[in-house]
Amino acid sequence: MSPHLLSVDSLSRDQVDHLLRVASRMEPIAQRRKITRVLEGAVLGNLFFEASTRTRVSFNAAFCRLGGSVCDTTGFTFSSMAKGESLYDTSRVMSGYVDAIVMRHPEQGSVAEFAAATHVPVINGGDGPGEHPSQALLDLYTIDKEFARLGKSLVGAHLLLTGDLKYGRTVHSLIKLLSLYDPMRITLVSPPGLEMPSHLIDLVTSRGHRVEQRESLANDFSDLDVIYTTRIQKERFTDEMSESFNGISQDFSVNRAFLESRCNATTIVMHPLPRDSRPGANDLDVDLNGDPRLAIFRQTDNGIPMRMAIFATLLKVEELIEKDLREVRWFVPKKIGVDDGQPG
Amino acid sequence: MSPHLLSVDSLSRDQVDHLLRVASRMEPIAQRRKITRVLEGAVLGNLFFEASTRTRVSFNAAFCRLGGSVCDTTGFTFSSMAKGESLYDTSRVMSGYVDAIVMRHPEQGSVAEFAAATHVPVINGGDGPGEHPSQALLDLYTIDKEFARLGKSLVGAHLLLTGDLKYGRTVHSLIKLLSLYDPMRITLVSPPGLEMPSHLIDLVTSRGHRVEQRESLANDFSDLDVIYTTRIQKERFTDEMSESFNGISQDFSVNRAFLESRCNATTIVMHPLPRDSRPGANDLDVDLNGDPRLAIFRQTDNGIPMRMAIFATLLKVEELIEKDLREVRWFVPKKIGVDDGQPG
Amino acid sequence: MSPHLLSVDSLSRDQVDHLLRVASRMEPIAQRRKITRVLEGAVLGNLFFEASTRTRVSFNAAFCRLGGSVCDTTGFTFSSMAKGESLYDTSRVMSGYVDAIVMRHPEQGSVAEFAAATHVPVINGGDGPGEHPSQALLDLYTIDKEFARLGKSLVGAHLLLTGDLKYGRTVHSLIKLLSLYDPMRITLVSPPGLEMPSHLIDLVTSRGHRVEQRESLANDFSDLDVIYTTRIQKERFTDEMSESFNGISQDFSVNRAFLESRCNATTIVMHPLPRDSRPGANDLDVDLNGDPRLAIFRQTDNGIPMRMAIFATLLKVEELIEKDLREVRWFVPKKIGVDDGQPG
Repeated sequence: MSPHLLSVDSLSRDQVDHLLRVASRMEPIAQRRKITRVLEGAVLGNLFFEASTRTRVSFNAAFCRLGGSVCDTTGFTFSSMAKGESLYDTSRVMSGYVDAIVMRHPEQGSVAEFAAATHVPVINGGDGPGEHPSQALLDLYTIDKEFARLGKSLVGAHLLLTGDLKYGRTVHSLIKLLSLYDPMRITLVSPPGLEMPSHLIDLVTSRGHRVEQRESLANDFSDLDVIYTTRIQKERFTDEMSESFNGISQDFSVNRAFLESRCNATTIVMHPLPRDSRPGANDLDVDLNGDPRLAIFRQTDNGIPMRMAIFATLLKVEELIEKDLREVRWFVPKKIGVDDGQPG
Repeated sequence: MSPHLLSVDSLSRDQVDHLLRVASRMEPIAQRRKITRVLEGAVLGNLFFEASTRTRVSFNAAFCRLGGSVCDTTGFTFSSMAKGESLYDTSRVMSGYVDAIVMRHPEQGSVAEFAAATHVPVINGGDGPGEHPSQALLDLYTIDKEFARLGKSLVGAHLLLTGDLKYGRTVHSLIKLLSLYDPMRITLVSPPGLEMPSHLIDLVTSRGHRVEQRESLANDFSDLDVIYTTRIQKERFTDEMSESFNGISQDFSVNRAFLESRCNATTIVMHPLPRDSRPGANDLDVDLNGDPRLAIFRQTDNGIPMRMAIFATLLKVEELIEKDLREVRWFVPKKIGVDDGQPG
Repeated sequence: MSPHLLSVDSLSRDQVDHLLRVASRMEPIAQRRKITRVLEGAVLGNLFFEASTRTRVSFNAAFCRLGGSVCDTTGFTFSSMAKGESLYDTSRVMSGYVDAIVMRHPEQGSVAEFAAATHVPVINGGDGPGEHPSQALLDLYTIDKEFARLGKSLVGAHLLLTGDLKYGRTVHSLIKLLSLYDPMRITLVSPPGLEMPSHLIDLVTSRGHRVEQRESLANDFSDLDVIYTTRIQKERFTDEMSESFNGISQDFSVNRAFLESRCNATTIVMHPLPRDSRPGANDLDVDLNGDPRLAIFRQTDNGIPMRMAIFATLLKVEELIEKDLREVRWFVPKKIGVDDGQPG
């Protein structure tokens, strides 16, 4: 594997499989039955030039659970960069202080530029419209884990990706990762103007998958295994798109009625979160809260073992961890990692 | 005990006694003679939607002293909540990342709403005009510890609560905790319009305590054991109150002259801090700095063992700690936890 | 040594030598070949009233590498100080929470005022135009280490300090530290109006060093051992200075051409960073990146062992560390602490 994790594009099928396996071995720690101190003495620089509480806390907690320490930095700019310091200087300086860097930045490509000047592993925690590879990996890990629980296989699975498929970087990265696996059937449903870019469809098709595009959810999905829904960001719409979208908005609500009438008892529902719970938001409906098919919180829970796997792999401790496990001594909530989204 | 600590209302006398006992056993750690690693592998999410450096650092340090790691978040809003995420979603997601949550929020009730959706223990670090239970517990612990030092007992003790008794949440919570104990005498002195709410006086009286209300400090307090003074927040005054208050403001200054002329040699002085040291602030006077009766810094020092006790109890490690103590190896300042407020 | 590190003025030659020796013994940890947990259980309060990501992360990482935990606070003011709390109260309260404090503050003298009220060691992380002693110590440590590598000695060495010598606090502190050592030759080159204050020149001269002031870099520096260049902050110029400076600005560029034409093969180039890499910034040129004489990143790398040495000395664990070393188990980048500034 590359010293960094900047994009899913650099990952081979073997490397993805390795990360899935390591993540799986991290479960006892993520579920707080075991602890390890394998990264004792290591320091993570968690650099968030753009706010993202959830992603920052997830990386921070994952590194701590491996025994390391974390130094968080948040804010739109570094104080030294305001004085004209180059990304090169900042990066090289930071690599003398910390042992790994997670960086989130609003500009596409900036994390790769940063990584080029550093001597320590850099993980892209999201670079604007660019990449967010740890999200795609935890999404794939969730599908893999849910399928194992349900006795299903990726071969021939039917997945529906819906919402904003044009700008949503999570669905772009996920579909690339999925395409590395055995042939499956992928249905895409998005409002007009927010379709999946054709080069991604071509890529997936060229790897033997069957891709189908539809304009509405008013279809039969009775053989569906996964719905992956994303928030439609209306602020990105042109006037024409807004008009057209308002007329058909109901078609994009994934809710209990849709699941009951058109899907089946084991169709799982995923979402990269956050979901917009405000009235009229047209996002994944809260009426599915408590339904075991709603996998969104198992999905975020899975961020911990997957991010642990990424750190463990980049820092080359994945083999050491199992020799270093100890029992947790403090109170362990029962539902972590295994609950079904019901209010506690 | 409830899985959370949201309010002092949920605490029984036995539970408060337990916390006082555990806090006392944390003293060797808080005074930096011993260390423990009992919470190794645990992560605290320290979520401050409202700034409070002192409270945040105190919880953070208490968790670290038990061996855990802390991930701080500060700022008026979560980035994801700005995108319409519900408190329910935020809470459920965070509980997959961390093992305990301290939350401070400007809106009353928001911490309880947050706790309802989570699977990990939540501690209310202050919810606006609502509750701040760890402050009340450390206040009670301070009285208990000072009384033990002075050979005094809570039975029949005379306490004076003064300042803003209407809006000051710390005095509300403290008086509730005190009311669980043996009958004592509580005198209330506040400017007109800032009196203690009558339902709290009724509660305390119904539990056998003697409560007396006065409008001025110009009285004999020679049998007084504790003065608990709070900052009067003039920004909350109506015009009428301002006029009336300005005429009598001197009566509410707790200073060396008051202590010398009206109290006794063992009357301790407490304050939830911060105190306003600006000229004309009419807050607890700095002329008491260095007087052994000034207990305000012993009081903040006590925040560490009490917050350790809260974490230890919620995470069920209070029995384990004593088996896990080791000697501190680094430099230990002599005065921590036992000094009298004198400049160092 | 004083319980605090507030200024280089308080340091004797013996104390500086001790810090250099301890820093040297920290190298295996800073270079991530060894780890120690000697500060286990200790908590650092890292209080940055003024933003400085680099300095904050460096202190944070140094404390973590010794096994301690860190609680960061950033922002222009403490929430409690906005309510009128004195620096005395804030300081005394914090000393009950943490075991050491690093404080950066925009006002000269504020860190010393803070230290006077606390019971724990305080390190000045920069107080506006005042002091930044850890920077001067890491600069001296860098010269010492580079000289050892090159087989040179401080006795009779020739150092050039250039740039803003009037306002640059780093050169003031550095020249004071250098003056404690054996006689050397120090050349000062600055634009008119930005000369080194005469009381500092007098101090250094009175200790037996040879100091020479020049107005331009257009001289022969073929026997030069060290160039220490600083950023010229044009925002501090009067109109007259701006005019005069614009005419001669080229003379103050330290770049590859200058090094090739006027210096020698072992002249090392230092800078306190950040350097302004924007076009026309007239700061240290990026065309030296990759040249082994460019020591600026080795210099920032050296911040870790020196800050570890400061913590270890103030917390009196410098003798314990060597008994407590363990091997690093995670991936160690090859170039940390030894590279030459080349892009990675």
